[in-house]
Amino acid sequence: MRTRVTDMFGIEFPVFAFSHCRDVVAAVSRAGGMGVLGALYFTPEELEIELKWIDDHVDGRPYGVDVVMPASYEGADLDVDSPAELVARLQGMIPQGHRAFVEDLLARHGVPPLDGSDSGKVLLGWTDATARPQVEVALRHPIALLANALGPPPADVVEQAHAKGVKVAALASTPRHAIKQVEVGVDVVVAQGTEAGGHTGEISTMVLIPQVVDAVDVPVLAAGGIGSGRQMAAGMALGAEGVWTGSIWLAVEEADTSETVRQRIIAATSRDTVRSRSWTGKPARLLKNEWTDAWESAESPGTLPMPLQFMLISDALRRIGRSDATELATFPAGQIIGAMNQVKPARQVVFEMVEEYIEAMERLGRITGDG
Amino acid sequence: MRTRVTDMFGIEFPVFAFSHCRDVVAAVSRAGGMGVLGALYFTPEELEIELKWIDDHVDGRPYGVDVVMPASYEGADLDVDSPAELVARLQGMIPQGHRAFVEDLLARHGVPPLDGSDSGKVLLGWTDATARPQVEVALRHPIALLANALGPPPADVVEQAHAKGVKVAALASTPRHAIKQVEVGVDVVVAQGTEAGGHTGEISTMVLIPQVVDAVDVPVLAAGGIGSGRQMAAGMALGAEGVWTGSIWLAVEEADTSETVRQRIIAATSRDTVRSRSWTGKPARLLKNEWTDAWESAESPGTLPMPLQFMLISDALRRIGRSDATELATFPAGQIIGAMNQVKPARQVVFEMVEEYIEAMERLGRITGDG
Repeated sequence: MRTRVTDMFGIEFPVFAFSHCRDVVAAVSRAGGMGVLGALYFTPEELEIELKWIDDHVDGRPYGVDVVMPASYEGADLDVDSPAELVARLQGMIPQGHRAFVEDLLARHGVPPLDGSDSGKVLLGWTDATARPQVEVALRHPIALLANALGPPPADVVEQAHAKGVKVAALASTPRHAIKQVEVGVDVVVAQGTEAGGHTGEISTMVLIPQVVDAVDVPVLAAGGIGSGRQMAAGMALGAEGVWTGSIWLAVEEADTSETVRQRIIAATSRDTVRSRSWTGKPARLLKNEWTDAWESAESPGTLPMPLQFMLISDALRRIGRSDATELATFPAGQIIGAMNQVKPARQVVFEMVEEYIEAMERLGRITGDG
Repeated sequence: MRTRVTDMFGIEFPVFAFSHCRDVVAAVSRAGGMGVLGALYFTPEELEIELKWIDDHVDGRPYGVDVVMPASYEGADLDVDSPAELVARLQGMIPQGHRAFVEDLLARHGVPPLDGSDSGKVLLGWTDATARPQVEVALRHPIALLANALGPPPADVVEQAHAKGVKVAALASTPRHAIKQVEVGVDVVVAQGTEAGGHTGEISTMVLIPQVVDAVDVPVLAAGGIGSGRQMAAGMALGAEGVWTGSIWLAVEEADTSETVRQRIIAATSRDTVRSRSWTGKPARLLKNEWTDAWESAESPGTLPMPLQFMLISDALRRIGRSDATELATFPAGQIIGAMNQVKPARQVVFEMVEEYIEAMERLGRITGDG
């Protein structure tokens, strides 16, 4: 397969795989696609270890790193000397009523507290201040792509990446976003429809992709609802030059997904997700369950703006993850989880996607008499 | 182009055009696609006139009729002797608080009352009792397709249609719906994604179509977010054998759309729609405006179940339509209204769709080196 994207990165198939798991990233890159590691959950020191591992396991194939530098968030205008001070100031902005709501919800579901030694990493890379050290680590590795979720990356970050020969991508959920991103120098736009897992907009992939393709000159990757070869073919038919996938990798063999989450994914239908602010304060598609329902209930105090919401709930999520309260265990997931009902190696997922893509092309050829 | 659907109906392009406007229906059928008249807003007598007109203007090409026989609605179990009695009984079930909310909303926007002679047709074809006379009228005409929204049509209606050689289609928003429809004898499933205008489910077209195609043996039409050749190509890549379109016809030259609505459509982006129960009581995608906002507001009494909600608001909609309160004038519209910014003849829309489809195929061929 050949598009501007396969040429840009020297890859065989224009299949980008977003994952927080280094094994998945390396496996997809080795299979001829391009793995992209989500850096969000890692401290700079941890990220260094993950990327070193990928460097050692990717057989020289290109891979990428995805960071979250939101264009807007609470506390962006605070005058602080260190990330630690920022965390402390932000902690002080979380209302007591919200903390009580979370504690009460957990108590009702019998979720035990963390022991004292186990205090969480409460901020993560949700802010410019905390994501920049991740970018610095990433740019010390031979990455081919730096991707940013939640808006155009800062112009100086784009410059730094370009100076190292690293291409920059950004996720867009409207044509206007895409235009802004290209204005700051983004090389690839990931146009992501509302059916995607994680942070997502309102417009569906079917409607969004042609609008973004028509709005910008750089290549566009189709994201949202794409986990099979037919969906890949549809994305390319809409004008994309590659696809960006996420949820499909949650249940592959290599994924370090917990058994609880894996079983939930296998059992879920495409109606079992919901766009909710209950994870980070910005709308994100999550597995719909008693957690997401609770934040929509009459008792809900409402969600807090990014990054306060995740700071509020991060210990709670870890407590839930270690408890038997699986009914509260939510996670970012796109609507394609309804079609995921088998655990396969990542390599096989890539090959089956390409095979089904080719079959779809042959079927389309027969419709117009070219087959 | 050739699929099981073009063979089934003897049409040149597998493009189905849902419209309440007879001119659009006839124009699309004459252009080689298939127009489908939405019968909902017509009394049986009016429908007779519309279909007679189409018979006279379709040059012998096939066309269809779409009715609404919801699988469930309020009052379905009432023991009544006539549609008039059903209407009276249902009217009595509308709470006074809801009537007051609507009156107050209209008063705040300066919408004048209807004059007394102008009492509305308050029920329309939202029930089995009121849709059956429409079916009887439709089956007296040389229609090729009878389509049902909102669930599988009653088995005896399918039988009546088949006895006249008329194929039956039904709209599905989940694979489970599609399976039920095929069990009652439906010949074509219209799998409709959440981005569609009007009554719609939660699953996006990109995610839904492959699931429905895999679930049933009959041909599937892709609906939701489809208004261009690239979107048609995407729908076919997903496994559909044709496309079902709706919103795209709202702004064609032939449409009897009011100038207000036409201007709203031209100005709208794809984020200006919302899935709301404020039209009929079941979730439908509408133009998002002060009407839909009001029903989500803190003052809202909540919506009523079908068919009570539309009975409650039908006079209000007519009053708004005749007033200057364009900020309240909502209507069913899909997310593709964001891409609609020109008024063209229906025939041109069909031809441009097919042309763009062919271009998309050529582009896809070049990606795999077959172009």
